Amino acid sequence: MHAPKSSSLTSDLPDIAADILARLRATNPRVHCITNAVAQNFTANVLLAVGALPSMTVDPAEIAQFVARADALLVNLGTLNRDRREAAEIAIEQVTDERRPWVLDPVFVDRSEPRTAFAKTLVDRQPWAIRLNGAEFSALAEAAPEDAALKQYVLQHLGVIALTGATDIVTDGARFVKILNGDPLMTQVTAMGCAGAAVVTACLAVEADPWLATAAGLLAFAVAGECAAMRARGPGSLAVEIIDALAGLDRDTMRARARIG
Amino acid sequence: MHAPKSSSLTSDLPDIAADILARLRATNPRVHCITNAVAQNFTANVLLAVGALPSMTVDPAEIAQFVARADALLVNLGTLNRDRREAAEIAIEQVTDERRPWVLDPVFVDRSEPRTAFAKTLVDRQPWAIRLNGAEFSALAEAAPEDAALKQYVLQHLGVIALTGATDIVTDGARFVKILNGDPLMTQVTAMGCAGAAVVTACLAVEADPWLATAAGLLAFAVAGECAAMRARGPGSLAVEIIDALAGLDRDTMRARARIG
Amino acid sequence: MHAPKSSSLTSDLPDIAADILARLRATNPRVHCITNAVAQNFTANVLLAVGALPSMTVDPAEIAQFVARADALLVNLGTLNRDRREAAEIAIEQVTDERRPWVLDPVFVDRSEPRTAFAKTLVDRQPWAIRLNGAEFSALAEAAPEDAALKQYVLQHLGVIALTGATDIVTDGARFVKILNGDPLMTQVTAMGCAGAAVVTACLAVEADPWLATAAGLLAFAVAGECAAMRARGPGSLAVEIIDALAGLDRDTMRARARIG
Repeated sequence: MHAPKSSSLTSDLPDIAADILARLRATNPRVHCITNAVAQNFTANVLLAVGALPSMTVDPAEIAQFVARADALLVNLGTLNRDRREAAEIAIEQVTDERRPWVLDPVFVDRSEPRTAFAKTLVDRQPWAIRLNGAEFSALAEAAPEDAALKQYVLQHLGVIALTGATDIVTDGARFVKILNGDPLMTQVTAMGCAGAAVVTACLAVEADPWLATAAGLLAFAVAGECAAMRARGPGSLAVEIIDALAGLDRDTMRARARIG
Repeated sequence: MHAPKSSSLTSDLPDIAADILARLRATNPRVHCITNAVAQNFTANVLLAVGALPSMTVDPAEIAQFVARADALLVNLGTLNRDRREAAEIAIEQVTDERRPWVLDPVFVDRSEPRTAFAKTLVDRQPWAIRLNGAEFSALAEAAPEDAALKQYVLQHLGVIALTGATDIVTDGARFVKILNGDPLMTQVTAMGCAGAAVVTACLAVEADPWLATAAGLLAFAVAGECAAMRARGPGSLAVEIIDALAGLDRDTMRARARIG
Repeated sequence: MHAPKSSSLTSDLPDIAADILARLRATNPRVHCITNAVAQNFTANVLLAVGALPSMTVDPAEIAQFVARADALLVNLGTLNRDRREAAEIAIEQVTDERRPWVLDPVFVDRSEPRTAFAKTLVDRQPWAIRLNGAEFSALAEAAPEDAALKQYVLQHLGVIALTGATDIVTDGARFVKILNGDPLMTQVTAMGCAGAAVVTACLAVEADPWLATAAGLLAFAVAGECAAMRARGPGSLAVEIIDALAGLDRDTMRARARIG
């Protein structure tokens, strides 16, 4: 397959991302996260850094109350447990009914068959975007993470697929973009992918085109990671610097640094 | 209402706060925290930075053992779940029986009616201090967060109210102080308010006057936040710098920086 | 008792630790952690910094799947709850059957009798190494944390004991080493001991001699902490710097800094 490319859109992506960041900072959307215990603090700080207001409860008894007041929902399957499974089902039903965006991050589905099975039931609920790495895609789609398989998977399930790695690929089946930004040091910080998916969720709260929102969110996150890596002396300082970089990310930096294929 | 002011006490507050910090560092009180999953790590590090020894278990089966060995208790309602609710009830009964101090931080009661209802039952158990923001006060007290409403609420429920925001207000009904320190960047770091309430809890372990302990704790925290903001390049580094600032906070800095109204 | 010392081994320990670090970075073993809520994020970042790949689920329904794909297991008893107790039993049975290494970190057994009792049942399952401080040893062994008591305990229960504190002591009954590295500031960062035990667990995944793996892991961690303390301005920055230091720790630093008794 020779992937279709939307040249005009992708060349505009740095500016679109800057526009979306400006909207996040102006409107402060609420993003509810059902996410794993390792990622909760870092994810909340990343969301605050881009202007969103995070909430993190995972109790099935309260989840509906929080989701009712949220502009977008993230469902991350790390440290999955009974509460998180139940809460995810309640929350997804609610945002679906009310046509609000939600993102699925099927963390570590390659490590656990019950988790893969649960993730598949969530994919059937049609998340607006799915963020995963190659191993997670293979477990979920039962196919190697190649362009044609991504396209087939997304056409089958609708929504947007964001395959993250050294290069991020974002496609809705019709449009296709590769984001070349980022830094290898980012793989040495836990919950980095989880936090990227949270930024995507925030973008979906302020941008109606899910593919643009997803691509813009991952681009902003990767550019911030790259800026952070230039200042960091290792993975510890990178985790701090990327939050500062996200909070300070501006249009000029996006334009100067974005590398899109 | 024209709020009463204890001029002599408030002018002494920087020194009183420095005294309390010295006692924390000398006696290392144990502070047990039933707190939310997002705040646990940051809260523990903030407590260690002021000289207290944190513990964080929320299991109803073990909570009594930990509280029996603690000098003060924090009950924070973030990421509330069945374990945390049960643990809070056991822990509060225990510290009440033994007349040890406890603080209530009713996080996000404005987002969930079941949480508001639960928080009200805890207020009836008469926490020594309640820390909340304006939206949380409004949900709990069913009144706008104005001076007269604060006074009425605290007279009705006893204890101390600490309303945190751009300005912190601390009152026990008779005494009233406004703390003008702090930095807007603090609102961009998750669990910042939770950590401030933990510092207050530590102060209650070494200072018998709850109003003084609460005001001193919030003053020290706000001054540290201000010092941290001068060094920080964004919210990521602020979260690191405030811990360093708390650990190094001295009497001269308290005196030079405190802005009290 | 005059503790036996393996002179040749201990003088080689800096190089052995450097070799083990090199193997971690080359092979990226998977380390599954059943650890406490306060320590999860920091522990994951510490493991990534030494080259290991952490996973953190504690759900009894999924634990077997993760442990089946892990090279070593850490069982830390902080914020113990029903899920963690059940998961620990499933996980330990599995690694025991498959003869893979596991480490016990009986956090705060001195604060809770039920936890002490549970920890004793886990000691009976013969962890490859136990990491604890003096108060935890006293609660578990019902003896003061002195050399003779350590030796007796380890001979009775097999495995390796690592008593951490201002000086770390590592013994398997026959061999005995004291690690003098580290910095007092490390005690002001939460989960520091937990993270050290995680590094030991990673070392056990790539080094067949449990005593060497444990001693090397704690030595590397203490040297990194010392390097970090030289750059840190307080406990907040220490927590960041130690991760950078672990990621950059090299043979020359190990040789130049190791202080072994």
